[in-house]
Amino acid sequence: MNRLHLPLLAVDGGGTKSLAVLLDQQQQALGEGQAGGCNYQGIGKEAATQSLTACLDKAMKDLAKKKKLSHSEIQLEVECAVFGMAGLDTEQDRQVILEMIDEALKSVKIYPKNLLIENDGFATLLGETEGKPGILVIAGTGSIVYGVNEAGMYARTGGWGHRVGDEGSGYWIGKQAVIAILRAEDGRGPNTSLSESIYSQIGAENGEDLVNWVYSPSYSVKKMAELSQFVYKSYLDGDEVAKTILLKASEELFIAARAVIEQLELKEKAFQIILQGGVLKHQDFVRQTLMDQLYQYVPEAKIDMGKQDPIFGIITKGLSFLQRECE
Amino acid sequence: MNRLHLPLLAVDGGGTKSLAVLLDQQQQALGEGQAGGCNYQGIGKEAATQSLTACLDKAMKDLAKKKKLSHSEIQLEVECAVFGMAGLDTEQDRQVILEMIDEALKSVKIYPKNLLIENDGFATLLGETEGKPGILVIAGTGSIVYGVNEAGMYARTGGWGHRVGDEGSGYWIGKQAVIAILRAEDGRGPNTSLSESIYSQIGAENGEDLVNWVYSPSYSVKKMAELSQFVYKSYLDGDEVAKTILLKASEELFIAARAVIEQLELKEKAFQIILQGGVLKHQDFVRQTLMDQLYQYVPEAKIDMGKQDPIFGIITKGLSFLQRECE
Repeated sequence: MNRLHLPLLAVDGGGTKSLAVLLDQQQQALGEGQAGGCNYQGIGKEAATQSLTACLDKAMKDLAKKKKLSHSEIQLEVECAVFGMAGLDTEQDRQVILEMIDEALKSVKIYPKNLLIENDGFATLLGETEGKPGILVIAGTGSIVYGVNEAGMYARTGGWGHRVGDEGSGYWIGKQAVIAILRAEDGRGPNTSLSESIYSQIGAENGEDLVNWVYSPSYSVKKMAELSQFVYKSYLDGDEVAKTILLKASEELFIAARAVIEQLELKEKAFQIILQGGVLKHQDFVRQTLMDQLYQYVPEAKIDMGKQDPIFGIITKGLSFLQRECE
Repeated sequence: MNRLHLPLLAVDGGGTKSLAVLLDQQQQALGEGQAGGCNYQGIGKEAATQSLTACLDKAMKDLAKKKKLSHSEIQLEVECAVFGMAGLDTEQDRQVILEMIDEALKSVKIYPKNLLIENDGFATLLGETEGKPGILVIAGTGSIVYGVNEAGMYARTGGWGHRVGDEGSGYWIGKQAVIAILRAEDGRGPNTSLSESIYSQIGAENGEDLVNWVYSPSYSVKKMAELSQFVYKSYLDGDEVAKTILLKASEELFIAARAVIEQLELKEKAFQIILQGGVLKHQDFVRQTLMDQLYQYVPEAKIDMGKQDPIFGIITKGLSFLQRECE
């Protein structure tokens, strides 16, 4: 059995992909592995643990190959393992995710001396701001805002999932569209061209079909979120109902961002605002409206779309831990 | 085998109970049976069919006893069978419910010459107005408005279930409360005493516990609806957030009622407005606010809470069918 030692294991445990990187003293990647998403809230604990194990196993195989050793004979000790995990929102989540990580690490024979587990949003934020103060506004399928200030204090607002939160997200926009169509159909609300585009997308002919789709086994939060692109299309075609929904979405994202800025007392400071997720990437009107509101509220902030891969934030976190350990 | 013949079978297939009544020429009940709810959307097709079969079976046993016959030897032909069924909102529902009814009737050996299947709301409405024009506003766990005009035209608005509808219902009020608590907790909204009362109700200590409850296996639409009573309590204690939610609930119910009144062109006519369901029964402020709005919109309408059991509406429907048949 070969016992190896490395300073850092960084894992981006995202909702759609998992990435594990093993780094040496010079911050060179000696092993990398990628697998499917590992948000246990979306796919369950077992499947999430499998993805996590798979990406770690691939990183170990990559390391073995580079070291010209047999994979089965390696045991790896790392000074610090950092995980940025999707689905980590509450203390209860932390317990579940800790068990997942523990199981995955044992099964691939990686033994960390120190284990840091972060929410993936905070990890991404750290990567983008390189440890400086900033906030991260995500509006994809779900929505959430993360922030960190110069004292290293964290805050988050929004999120809370599809049942009672995720305001301004793709899911939320899709749901508002379905509600607006039904209100138009039964005479409670104004007519909208959303009916036409969304009916043809899901193969519906009327409101009844739409309701049946919403309660059918094939319905999912992801499918509802996909409808948001048709809201954007209807907006571009001049539909007022679609415009109202998108304005409300950017307003909700602004409210969530403002609450983080207030909590971290960033208002008078120079800090970065990162916008991420499909809605803010593809729906120019939502992004621009949000940016206008933010610039009015915090004129000194620097807003951009972020370029770094989340893994850099996780590596940054690990390096700063190792640095503090040496001091 | 004894073949019996009766003019009418009336069945109230409600969400919480099923009631079957067999009537003779003099409109005397010769057999009655009661069982659990049979809304297939809530409990599934199989359990709903079982409830339906059970109430029919009990009515047949009651009939057998009265006729001093052995239950196993009776076959019953009815001139007309009328079912008022919860969960009948779309053509797809009608197909499922027809199969349920067909299976239940066969298994208890009831053979109807004519089969009428109604949504339970329309059936209730008919019972209340005795066939005259009127609308029925229901706000219980869910919400919906039914209406009928002097030409016998039907209309319904609202409803559409917990995912994209049921505005102003107990579920909707409970959900708005949870959203308001989370917005207060993460700094997006004003503080509210709702937190305290709802946390203590579900055994939560903070917003994280509340979110875990919302996504836990023990969560249900019914449990969310039960929270609405705490919104009412907070309103009575002077909470402004609770008041805003209840005002919005009555506004939503008014919008749904107005849309039915418009569609049926009842505005200038004399007609009855029936208010039903736990929210309108127990939350005086919601009921009174809705009534004020309705009186302003249709001053000539007569508003009351309704007293009739839904079964009377179903019987009325059957009798008017039999009468037309004889003409």
